[in-house]
Amino acid sequence: MQSFVQYDSNSEFPIQNLPYGVFSTKDNPKPRPGVAIGNEVLDLQAIKSLFVGPLMSKNVHVFDTDSLNGLMSLGKAHWTECRETLQRILSSSESVLRDSPLRKTALVSQSDVTMHLPARIGDYTDFYSSIDHATNVGTMFRGKENALMANWKYLPVGYHGRASSIVVSGTPIRRPNGQMCPVENQPPVFGACKLLDFELEMGFFVGPGNSLGEPIPVTSAEDHIFGLCLCNDWSARDIQKWEYVPLGPFLAKNFGTTVSPWIVTLAALEPFRVENYAQDPTPFPYLQHNDPFTFNIPLTVSIRPENSSDETTVCQSNFRYIYWTMKQQLAHHTITGCNANPGDMLASGTISGPTPESYGSMLELSWRGTKPIQMKDGSTRNFLKDGDEVIIRGTAQGDGYKVGFGKCAGVVLPALQLSS
Amino acid sequence: MQSFVQYDSNSEFPIQNLPYGVFSTKDNPKPRPGVAIGNEVLDLQAIKSLFVGPLMSKNVHVFDTDSLNGLMSLGKAHWTECRETLQRILSSSESVLRDSPLRKTALVSQSDVTMHLPARIGDYTDFYSSIDHATNVGTMFRGKENALMANWKYLPVGYHGRASSIVVSGTPIRRPNGQMCPVENQPPVFGACKLLDFELEMGFFVGPGNSLGEPIPVTSAEDHIFGLCLCNDWSARDIQKWEYVPLGPFLAKNFGTTVSPWIVTLAALEPFRVENYAQDPTPFPYLQHNDPFTFNIPLTVSIRPENSSDETTVCQSNFRYIYWTMKQQLAHHTITGCNANPGDMLASGTISGPTPESYGSMLELSWRGTKPIQMKDGSTRNFLKDGDEVIIRGTAQGDGYKVGFGKCAGVVLPALQLSS
Repeated sequence: MQSFVQYDSNSEFPIQNLPYGVFSTKDNPKPRPGVAIGNEVLDLQAIKSLFVGPLMSKNVHVFDTDSLNGLMSLGKAHWTECRETLQRILSSSESVLRDSPLRKTALVSQSDVTMHLPARIGDYTDFYSSIDHATNVGTMFRGKENALMANWKYLPVGYHGRASSIVVSGTPIRRPNGQMCPVENQPPVFGACKLLDFELEMGFFVGPGNSLGEPIPVTSAEDHIFGLCLCNDWSARDIQKWEYVPLGPFLAKNFGTTVSPWIVTLAALEPFRVENYAQDPTPFPYLQHNDPFTFNIPLTVSIRPENSSDETTVCQSNFRYIYWTMKQQLAHHTITGCNANPGDMLASGTISGPTPESYGSMLELSWRGTKPIQMKDGSTRNFLKDGDEVIIRGTAQGDGYKVGFGKCAGVVLPALQLSS
Repeated sequence: MQSFVQYDSNSEFPIQNLPYGVFSTKDNPKPRPGVAIGNEVLDLQAIKSLFVGPLMSKNVHVFDTDSLNGLMSLGKAHWTECRETLQRILSSSESVLRDSPLRKTALVSQSDVTMHLPARIGDYTDFYSSIDHATNVGTMFRGKENALMANWKYLPVGYHGRASSIVVSGTPIRRPNGQMCPVENQPPVFGACKLLDFELEMGFFVGPGNSLGEPIPVTSAEDHIFGLCLCNDWSARDIQKWEYVPLGPFLAKNFGTTVSPWIVTLAALEPFRVENYAQDPTPFPYLQHNDPFTFNIPLTVSIRPENSSDETTVCQSNFRYIYWTMKQQLAHHTITGCNANPGDMLASGTISGPTPESYGSMLELSWRGTKPIQMKDGSTRNFLKDGDEVIIRGTAQGDGYKVGFGKCAGVVLPALQLSS
């Protein structure tokens, strides 16, 4: 499959990928849906007349909005037709766009666009589904013998996150102020977070939702998953440690969560399906599915210190290390009857692998600050410093092509100086 | 102050109240903003031409929507003018509505309307701000000596809740299925929740929000609070106990949260301000304010068993028992820079008072099921049974008038029978 749009074999966005995002341009500052192809963005609003299939031709209004929620809500049959249309009109053998005057206006260089949050995220849920991450954190705080809580292998532990502070890659993140208790059994102190961390995660976006009171069965959960993004669930470890009992993380997480601008569809990830993580004990029936639904997506985290052009890769992990699949997460989330809506985001939790270089947070990489990480510029890190840019990347290697998500990046701004 | 609309002195909705809600009628099924007056609803869309003040005359488009988010976003000066206009046009001495043909169409009997969720709630946060509730629960699970966690008196403990499953009073709530671990150190079981509970709470709605990275100072927090509602944070105690470590309540809370249809404004509650709960230790400066910002609002919870017409009042509490004020909650929530948006809801947590009859949940009222509650129909309750209607009411007593919220009610439906 080849496109008339030129790109090299290292491109994250070949015709096999076609991830969706929301973008605007200087000429047209209204955010609108687009698809990445090579180094360009295809403006879906501009080419909506080319959707001539029976399903999408009646639904091109979803491209007249500033989010992907409309497209997400249509469902799998529509997504399939949409992707087929896009692959056809972008292919080198098809003239309808290639030789049309539309080509010039509908294809915009990625260097000329501003990317926006791809969806209006009604609710955001964060899981804790990497067994290596949960084991590492448990070992640090409770010892090796009690690392995993009793519930961990029976259900995908998760919590409701803050949807309002999810931002698109490139948005700076301000170091939060808050309460911390640096000396146990002493009164807390107030000030800027000292243990600022990233969390390497992936998230998925819900397509069609479910009505309140009607769970999504694990057997049809796949039809409710639109696609995946990269995600950095910034975390203030010292604030978290003081506040989180007994109701879980709150301010330690609500100051910002960064997502990649591009959502890669399940269809594009199909070639990268791999066997699920072996689960023992066997989960309850409402969580059981036999088909592979884990994906081989190598992931990296790099840090670029302020005033440095050198990134240091501090983590190399893989989405396949996740113990609970996305289908299990969605089935579990809704088993009570909780309703999911198009555009809701469910994130994996920190994705750590079995080896130290695959740990998905500074907490684990520096093992609570006891093993400083060496940076290329000569400095070291236990946690993040002001000015650090944290960059998450994910690229699956296909047969002669790559499938990527674009950067999920953010720079740490210094904390606000608050009077008194 | 008297209205030309007739009601008796027991009405929850005199001209001193004027709470906002969203309603529809058989004739006009489009949900739209309204105000309760006596036994009627004033249709704000229908009377928008009567808003002639300098601020609201330019903003009556907020009444052309199906939520109060627009009105909420305008801010205090607009709210004040809006209330003044409504009190004037509803007063017995003013003819503009009283003697207009509009009166017949714009005033609808409350018995003829369907109430809807008053706002699009972007994010929902639930606090844990009653010291008696936190002490009771802590005593049950950790003993009297360790009842309050170390952080409790330093910060308003809270967590992010599920916004999608917030429903308006009258919506039935289905008993959830889920995992529970009835015998400690044994494997969990799956099935219908056996320990279904209510939580008596009040919530407030955010007016103008703040930008990400810019906290709302406690000194101006009041300007960001539009009004209050009653709230039942339905809880599955057995699911909660198994799932909640270490990230807090998740499925135990996400199957439904009921709110009253009417939002009572801060202006209407002004006469009921009372001294704040005495706080020791003194909170950090970012949480300090000296003006009273607790309100004397007596609250009750009643249970009406299926096929019974008799309600049994099981709880008599008061909003004034809350330790952390709403201003402190909002200042704390945003101290990290977390952004709040118009229509966000922040709930108090279960409101228990110092005496057993004021406990705001069955967990406390029946003391973990050890003290069954006697119902008028002869049955007893430790937790909720299928068919039970739970009704929360709140009515402040003014000088010759009452200010109420309408019922916050829901019936428990039996759990879904899931195959295997």
